[in-house]
Amino acid sequence: MDKREPHVVVVGAGFGGIMVARNLAGTRARVTVIDRANHHLFQPLLYQVATAALSPANIAAPIRDILRRQPNAEVFLAEVVGVDMQAKCVLLRDADPIPWDYLILAPGTRYNYFGHDEWERDAPSLKTLSDAVSIRQDILLAFEAAEMERDPERRKALLTFALVGGGPTGVELAGSLAELAQRAMRQDFRHIRPSETRILLLEAAPRILSMFPDKLALAAERALERLGVEVRTGAKVESVEPGAVVVSGEHIPCSTVLWTAGVVAAVPIGKWLGVETDRIGRIAVAPDLSVPGHPNVFVIGDAAHVEHEGQPLPGVAPVAMQQGRYVAKLIRARMDGKPIEPFRYHDKGNLATVGRSFAILDLGRLKLSGFIAWVLWLWIHIWYLIGFRNKISVFIQWAWAYITWQRSARLITGPIPAPGKR
Amino acid sequence: MDKREPHVVVVGAGFGGIMVARNLAGTRARVTVIDRANHHLFQPLLYQVATAALSPANIAAPIRDILRRQPNAEVFLAEVVGVDMQAKCVLLRDADPIPWDYLILAPGTRYNYFGHDEWERDAPSLKTLSDAVSIRQDILLAFEAAEMERDPERRKALLTFALVGGGPTGVELAGSLAELAQRAMRQDFRHIRPSETRILLLEAAPRILSMFPDKLALAAERALERLGVEVRTGAKVESVEPGAVVVSGEHIPCSTVLWTAGVVAAVPIGKWLGVETDRIGRIAVAPDLSVPGHPNVFVIGDAAHVEHEGQPLPGVAPVAMQQGRYVAKLIRARMDGKPIEPFRYHDKGNLATVGRSFAILDLGRLKLSGFIAWVLWLWIHIWYLIGFRNKISVFIQWAWAYITWQRSARLITGPIPAPGKR
Repeated sequence: MDKREPHVVVVGAGFGGIMVARNLAGTRARVTVIDRANHHLFQPLLYQVATAALSPANIAAPIRDILRRQPNAEVFLAEVVGVDMQAKCVLLRDADPIPWDYLILAPGTRYNYFGHDEWERDAPSLKTLSDAVSIRQDILLAFEAAEMERDPERRKALLTFALVGGGPTGVELAGSLAELAQRAMRQDFRHIRPSETRILLLEAAPRILSMFPDKLALAAERALERLGVEVRTGAKVESVEPGAVVVSGEHIPCSTVLWTAGVVAAVPIGKWLGVETDRIGRIAVAPDLSVPGHPNVFVIGDAAHVEHEGQPLPGVAPVAMQQGRYVAKLIRARMDGKPIEPFRYHDKGNLATVGRSFAILDLGRLKLSGFIAWVLWLWIHIWYLIGFRNKISVFIQWAWAYITWQRSARLITGPIPAPGKR
Repeated sequence: MDKREPHVVVVGAGFGGIMVARNLAGTRARVTVIDRANHHLFQPLLYQVATAALSPANIAAPIRDILRRQPNAEVFLAEVVGVDMQAKCVLLRDADPIPWDYLILAPGTRYNYFGHDEWERDAPSLKTLSDAVSIRQDILLAFEAAEMERDPERRKALLTFALVGGGPTGVELAGSLAELAQRAMRQDFRHIRPSETRILLLEAAPRILSMFPDKLALAAERALERLGVEVRTGAKVESVEPGAVVVSGEHIPCSTVLWTAGVVAAVPIGKWLGVETDRIGRIAVAPDLSVPGHPNVFVIGDAAHVEHEGQPLPGVAPVAMQQGRYVAKLIRARMDGKPIEPFRYHDKGNLATVGRSFAILDLGRLKLSGFIAWVLWLWIHIWYLIGFRNKISVFIQWAWAYITWQRSARLITGPIPAPGKR
């Protein structure tokens, strides 16, 4: 039996962290959720904010709001800078350390520039709401600058977008961007035809969507090509510079490069814990998701390395949610002095979408591509959106966008650089 | 009769500018709308974005979207830096000058710090979407910092908000902020009670809402006090400093000061045109709204000084819209070689709201305060929101917020300063 009121500290309010907190509601544990953002983010739809199809508030909910009816949970808006394993404390920037009885680390991942961090300035990646708003602004400003540009070469470069990385995020971003250019903004300009927009999806591997079976990945590639996206596989990005990208020796002038290739753990979690990590900074956890040698410290979500059928589990929401639920169950069992089985992953399949009427779905035995898969994709995403209001609001916004091809969120809210300065 | 295709250049896509452009649809005029933002803003609801009741996309529509079906109109995203009256050109930052046959200047106003521009840093004002998002962040971060603060004095200062200026914007902001603190966020925190929030509405004049009759202004003051707002009239702000405001000799520690007092023309329009202005930089226009001596140059909206029953017209949306419609009609008449009557203002009355169930309404003979006035306020605002989708979406968001007291837009999207650094 555990002591009376164990303090459970959860670092990161993504899908995994929120699940831990919610599944400890009504227990005698005290829960503290620490995040450097004040909101939980529905990351699978972040690309739709970047392409002006949804607004930030559609895919984010304040963490306090999610936990407001759970009196045993509190929320700290702070940045974790380390862990003191001896003193059993989480170290915060500019605030007192927080002691824990159980520590759950769910920091997620960030994109990896493969040793070229200097590319980030010209090829931003998409992880936070503020990334999405800033990329939305970059995309919209490229069209604005093209509308005012008289030189055909420069105009062409302004209307060229390169997406680096052919995983689900790159594919979804490419599809949504193609629709923004070719449909939603079709009537918006007088000097350019947005349909002249060139979208390159660059993948270093021999094919895109490597986590899907060949046949489905190929179907997605065809769907992208129907939307006018140029899919280039075996395309190695050799350099990113202001206004251009160099791919397999070819210098391609383009105003906008977006980076969606490869991830690493968002924080140096191996160093914090003093344990080994895998190649991308993840912790190989024990069968109960604890850190080897530290039975009260757990790593879940994208930063955990858990083998399943000989492969590490992918960094997707269902994995993190199942792991969060499991750890909460484990803590409840420990408080009651009961044993618990090791974590077991239930594969819910794999989904990716291309624009607004095509998706691919891999459920193991069942493999689907096309409109039906897209309807399933829509249904699953609305179902899992945290917060009732968001479900209705997102659904209406989608329905409206679907009917009219209008983009309600085409807003440039930051300071606008002069067209000549791009 | 005017020449075949006169070029009408409209500077500013507020209520007045958009009205000019839309009312020239289907004519042989070519219309160019220039604005430094890419969106038309429904300014009367901007305070609701600042207090997390609405999202930016609810109250803004891309200018291109508004004019997309009007082939004779084009949009320039650019900053106007001057006017060449000899060459009949508008001068842009970092772009070629744009020649005009008719020029309509509708630049609007900005807030006036009465010679203390250095106060702006610590007492921001609310004019643009990015102002609203930044003020929303300041407000939410003040509560976050208070939740983590242990010193009772500093905590009290973090929960003190001073609003400078008792006009409609100050009153509406105060009411909405009070509701955010006392209702919407009631269950969000564990260490502070948001109901302890102190909101000061500071007005230098003997009473608030000077444009309304005494009785209505007093009713609004009572409604504010019921929401817990401290209304201080005859309160002169003597200094704004980081973390404090000095009012009539009293030093009040407060983390957040918002400025809503007094406006001046947003650009030095008098200098551009080489004509005299009134005290706040507005141009006294001729009875047809043209600039004296320049029959093809017009000033409309907040930057125009037009007398009506011995008083200058107020800087509100109905005035700008009527003026925009009039100037479009005048240009159509000139193209047809017909005469036109001088501009006549039709007074539609005056409205202000206090929170979500109380408004005051002055229609001349009819004066209302209370819930019925608020329903009228709601109806009028939804009716005038440009863009059908926004109407439905805003209505749902309002209805949802009204039922649940939740604020869906409580998002901090920018970089978060450390709590100790506030």
